[in-house]
Amino acid sequence: MTKERNFSGVIAPVLTPFGPDGAPDADRFIDHAHWLIEEGCTALAPFGTTSEANSLGLDERLELLETLIDGGIDPSMMMPGTGACSVTDAIILTEHAVEAGCKGVLMLPPFYYKNPSEEGLYRFFSEVIEEVGDDDLKIYLYHIPPVSQVGFPLSLIGRLKKAFPEIIAGMKDSSGDWSNMKAVLETYPELEFFPGSEMHLLDGLRKGAAGVISATANVSPAPMRALFDSWQKDAADADAQQAKISALRNAVQAYPVIPLLKALVAHYRNDEQWAELRPPFETLDAATAKKAIAELAENHGLKLEFDEA
Amino acid sequence: MTKERNFSGVIAPVLTPFGPDGAPDADRFIDHAHWLIEEGCTALAPFGTTSEANSLGLDERLELLETLIDGGIDPSMMMPGTGACSVTDAIILTEHAVEAGCKGVLMLPPFYYKNPSEEGLYRFFSEVIEEVGDDDLKIYLYHIPPVSQVGFPLSLIGRLKKAFPEIIAGMKDSSGDWSNMKAVLETYPELEFFPGSEMHLLDGLRKGAAGVISATANVSPAPMRALFDSWQKDAADADAQQAKISALRNAVQAYPVIPLLKALVAHYRNDEQWAELRPPFETLDAATAKKAIAELAENHGLKLEFDEA
Repeated sequence: MTKERNFSGVIAPVLTPFGPDGAPDADRFIDHAHWLIEEGCTALAPFGTTSEANSLGLDERLELLETLIDGGIDPSMMMPGTGACSVTDAIILTEHAVEAGCKGVLMLPPFYYKNPSEEGLYRFFSEVIEEVGDDDLKIYLYHIPPVSQVGFPLSLIGRLKKAFPEIIAGMKDSSGDWSNMKAVLETYPELEFFPGSEMHLLDGLRKGAAGVISATANVSPAPMRALFDSWQKDAADADAQQAKISALRNAVQAYPVIPLLKALVAHYRNDEQWAELRPPFETLDAATAKKAIAELAENHGLKLEFDEA
Repeated sequence: MTKERNFSGVIAPVLTPFGPDGAPDADRFIDHAHWLIEEGCTALAPFGTTSEANSLGLDERLELLETLIDGGIDPSMMMPGTGACSVTDAIILTEHAVEAGCKGVLMLPPFYYKNPSEEGLYRFFSEVIEEVGDDDLKIYLYHIPPVSQVGFPLSLIGRLKKAFPEIIAGMKDSSGDWSNMKAVLETYPELEFFPGSEMHLLDGLRKGAAGVISATANVSPAPMRALFDSWQKDAADADAQQAKISALRNAVQAYPVIPLLKALVAHYRNDEQWAELRPPFETLDAATAKKAIAELAENHGLKLEFDEA
């Protein structure tokens, strides 16, 4: 850890709120982003899977990044998602993020066509890198095969890293598969590696991970941040912190995660509009939301606090 | 068949050619579209899976539809693909196609998030239909679970058809699963149904299908058109025609289909640029292309003919 990291710590894939007209809501979005930083997030990853980024239009994604910056979020604290099925749109989104001053981008592979060749995926990223043509570009590979189906095999990571050593900066691994995370951490220790769930936060840190990028950081970043800050001091205490963090995550995962996270923000902000999602997602039904919110508060102490406006 | 169909016959999901700069090539695109109609296609479905539509940017898709219309293709002969993961982009594409005069659109379901609820998919299509708000909109549901993973269960088709009887006009079924096709044909005989492969053309026609929308129609629409025009005259002859059509399709499917189709056009047009694909696809290597082209000519009589320019 002699080399200073570009990104580290606890990063939230920022939820995207929608207004009564169904359009993304700028004020709610900015407020949530600031709250996440106050609560301990070290950086933000807007336009991730949890952000319903793939339910946003191209122009909406471009505008919403400006919204956050205009709303006072330092672009150097952001790693926006800029992946797309089309290399054209991926270039537009990535170029825009770099020009806006984002210190990194989180990129999905093209995910419509299944079983692409490694060469085809390599070409996709090469074209983005060459077209953007900016030394400030830092790409974090977004490996999430349970959703995208298309992922990053170890050999592809190695090939990209070799060809673009200064640009391929890291990886988010949302495979849920610790053996894959371990293999990436061991094979490419120079990558800034983030498990996609806090279930693997401590195991990751002990193997050299840079932190975590997790959906749950939208409602409970503080315990992850505390563990990130303290894990090297006392192994037993770190294990105990991880156990609590994992218990909360397990409880959250028992429900549809994105609808539940939005229901939690809606409840504690006393703002029902926050609970809305874009199709193909549905708002959590009121009874389930009530039950989940009570259970998380009672069993896991999860309560979101907001300053009065 | 008392009611006149909106679309019927042999429809090609038009290949998208790219120029030396990697951008879609307008002249080659227009030439290919005209050739398809001359060869027997009754209509065109640009921006399908075979068209690498999901490797095109939003603006490229909008512009290329104008390109075809400006190039002399009657918009009423077109059923462009207008699906997208994001309801916003699906609305933009669909509205544009309807305003341009297209008599139908072929719509994928949102395909990033997996295992969406039926309600979520219903909401997606409802929002598109309500936002476009045009009685001229005719949607053909694009069921292709092997690629999109997300499909249209029978119950969803029924619900959409009931809510929007004048707008849900038909379906393309690229599941490759005859039992599903049969179920749709039997349950919703009023839908204009198109198998996504000519392997099921005659079986489909005998069960009430409106025709076929197939990748292979990019290189060999004439035999499909001949079968479509003659199948009711002589059952044994129709079976014999289908056998030849299926044999060609099987031979094509032994290779990566889209790269092979482009290699065929490149070969017979003597224009290597035609063989290029966008990532994540790769151009068929020269040796394989040569072998495939020779085999298809020898065993199946497949040769593309073009007027001298």
